[in-house]
Amino acid sequence: MDMTFEIIGWLAGICTAVSFVPQSLKTFRTKNVAGLSALTYTVYNLGVLGWVVYGAYLKSYQMVVFNAVCFAFSFSVLAMILRYRRRSRL
Amino acid sequence: MDMTFEIIGWLAGICTAVSFVPQSLKTFRTKNVAGLSALTYTVYNLGVLGWVVYGAYLKSYQMVVFNAVCFAFSFSVLAMILRYRRRSRL
Repeated sequence: MDMTFEIIGWLAGICTAVSFVPQSLKTFRTKNVAGLSALTYTVYNLGVLGWVVYGAYLKSYQMVVFNAVCFAFSFSVLAMILRYRRRSRL
Repeated sequence: MDMTFEIIGWLAGICTAVSFVPQSLKTFRTKNVAGLSALTYTVYNLGVLGWVVYGAYLKSYQMVVFNAVCFAFSFSVLAMILRYRRRSRL
């Protein structure tokens, strides 16, 4: 039973870590950022970065790695929102 | 120093918990889901739900509450993607 929950924890970590890969690819391909919330991605990235720091403090390397991967992709989405939004205003 | 990291952990939890509130409100208002990735929100919601279960197993009530709040809003975004996408196809 414990093993089941540990597996759920790992799967959850993998899911949240890679979840922004398709969003990042879609935004890169379409440059359509009109429906995306810059505030959501700003707050989310700050939160995930906080989890990286907190994971390092707890010496939980899974937490650091999962959240660092998550940050890389969600930050790329934020960067594209800011870039393509600015461009469309020109 | 420990206190600082505990505060970082709490702030990270609050950030990720509420981060999808602006996205949810924006999508509700604009119904513009063309730029949103349904796959991202599906994988992300599964992951967050996994964290709720894993948090309950660890008896970490902060983990359960933060992730349940996060799930509520990110699930609402997924529901709107599926709803408004279908509508625009009619």
